[in-house]
Amino acid sequence: MTAIPKSYRRVVLVNRPPGEPAESDFRVEEVAMPEPRHGEVLVKVHYLSLDPYQRGRMREAASYAAAVGLGEVMTGGIVGEVVKSSHPVFKEGDIVEDRLGWQEYAIGGGATMRRVDPSLAPISTANGVLGMPGMTAYFGLLDVGQPKTGETIVVSAASGAVGQVVGQIGKIMGCRVVGIAGGAKKCGFVTGELGFDACLDYKAEKDLDAALRAACPNGIDVYFDNVGGEISDAVLRNINFFGRVALCGSISQYNAASPPMGPRLLGTFVGKRVNLRGFIVTDFAERYAPARRQMGEWVRSGRIKYREDVVQGIDKAPRAFIGMLRGENFGKMLVKMG
Amino acid sequence: MTAIPKSYRRVVLVNRPPGEPAESDFRVEEVAMPEPRHGEVLVKVHYLSLDPYQRGRMREAASYAAAVGLGEVMTGGIVGEVVKSSHPVFKEGDIVEDRLGWQEYAIGGGATMRRVDPSLAPISTANGVLGMPGMTAYFGLLDVGQPKTGETIVVSAASGAVGQVVGQIGKIMGCRVVGIAGGAKKCGFVTGELGFDACLDYKAEKDLDAALRAACPNGIDVYFDNVGGEISDAVLRNINFFGRVALCGSISQYNAASPPMGPRLLGTFVGKRVNLRGFIVTDFAERYAPARRQMGEWVRSGRIKYREDVVQGIDKAPRAFIGMLRGENFGKMLVKMG
Repeated sequence: MTAIPKSYRRVVLVNRPPGEPAESDFRVEEVAMPEPRHGEVLVKVHYLSLDPYQRGRMREAASYAAAVGLGEVMTGGIVGEVVKSSHPVFKEGDIVEDRLGWQEYAIGGGATMRRVDPSLAPISTANGVLGMPGMTAYFGLLDVGQPKTGETIVVSAASGAVGQVVGQIGKIMGCRVVGIAGGAKKCGFVTGELGFDACLDYKAEKDLDAALRAACPNGIDVYFDNVGGEISDAVLRNINFFGRVALCGSISQYNAASPPMGPRLLGTFVGKRVNLRGFIVTDFAERYAPARRQMGEWVRSGRIKYREDVVQGIDKAPRAFIGMLRGENFGKMLVKMG
Repeated sequence: MTAIPKSYRRVVLVNRPPGEPAESDFRVEEVAMPEPRHGEVLVKVHYLSLDPYQRGRMREAASYAAAVGLGEVMTGGIVGEVVKSSHPVFKEGDIVEDRLGWQEYAIGGGATMRRVDPSLAPISTANGVLGMPGMTAYFGLLDVGQPKTGETIVVSAASGAVGQVVGQIGKIMGCRVVGIAGGAKKCGFVTGELGFDACLDYKAEKDLDAALRAACPNGIDVYFDNVGGEISDAVLRNINFFGRVALCGSISQYNAASPPMGPRLLGTFVGKRVNLRGFIVTDFAERYAPARRQMGEWVRSGRIKYREDVVQGIDKAPRAFIGMLRGENFGKMLVKMG
């Protein structure tokens, strides 16, 4: 049994920045270790998942989920170990996954907690390829994007937690897959390691429209959008008739204080019969189990690879999060505790 | 048998205006009467339909349909009478409907020509409520918008050829229907004659967002978009979770020389799971016959009313068309010949 300290550290939100967050918008604080009550467990966090959606939780504005209150622990998925249990199902030593926040220890045991089998894959994947980002890629591409063999898929933030999985599933489906990422290193990884057919470096391309036309000689049938903004403008100008757009995220806009302006494109979607659909991974929650089995097979057989970007220590979370919103991470962003 | 003159008038495109068209972009010319060859008919046009999509045909840029060539007859749907036939099916006296262009007489007999039964409704409706605009409203609302009883539908250009039908079908489906139109006269017609629950005058409303919130206390579930631009921005800012947007047209943008700018809204569709889909009525062509029967029943029983805006004489077509793009028409825009 793991020795449990008397206190632990957590990160709370102390300010709602209108634009880019600063480290001073967060506070790392040390608090007394709680005791699990009846039906609860105490979880020692091993990995905290940093994901772009968490930026939305910092806003007061209504969203599909409640905002983090000032002084409250930041929202985030974790994977960790049950170190004390008053729960009928979860017992000490269980590895579990849940959205318990930016903290070293947490009280869990609610309906969304699930047990992770550490013999199947490294437990960090429960926050990545076999967790929320992997499910987002799986359902967003297959259910919303509906790619058919031989079609061309473009995915933005291609080396990120979701993008890397989208492209690899696209290859399994027999599609041409073109990624968009920032920098030669990320693009080289996406084509060299993950097997995408091409990857465009949006920081280096002077004319992304022309680069997309060259990389997608048959046009673009499915766009999996993680970024929004000018990158998406270029993709959407080149979308095919009856193209599908899986609206997953708009990371380029998350730090915008007011809605930025861009070219009006809705009118171009009429004649092209483009179908755009926003989605949230939890819409597919009742189908997670079979999807996770399929993803697990693909990961174990090496058909789906993944890359993590791991920083050490809860106090590094704010800086890593700010960097991720700038695209500085390279792979699924995780904080390893202790 | 109708006497056939030796010549007739038609309107050809002579210039491709980047912005708003002028009458000088068209030429009314008199040409010799053609003779139908084997398998063809000569049609005396009774009504020409002026529709916003025709603006797109004036552009050289690729669209879902070919551009009108310079010196060629403008595209447009007509309803008229077969006055000479070398066709195995259509005979003299038949009332027919087809897309034969802005002209007083035309050669027809192709696969898209259909016979109109003048005993069912005034033949002008073959260009309106029982024709392309009616089918656009029917499939756009029911198939793309998928309204459910009790939901709220907003339709822009509410008194136009398509909008007036959308709203009335919405009422038949048991929805709350809110129109948007320009001017008190149009709004009064839409609520007073057509039975919409409310109509917002976008020319008079200082804060369309607030007016929409007041008129749609349960939010907006379905938006049938005929106009694009700032009106659509306001509607889309107030769309509900799992809202559906039928992208039918963008008349506010058709005269724009370059893509205008507007607020970036795609990111807001993610968490709200909004589904936007462009469509063209001909996608549903194989289902026109039963839809037209249903629409015919509704028209005959008085459940669907319609309003036409008719100008007299082919030479008036360019001016009427330019006015329609400005929203000056009140109801389905038609040119009556002779």
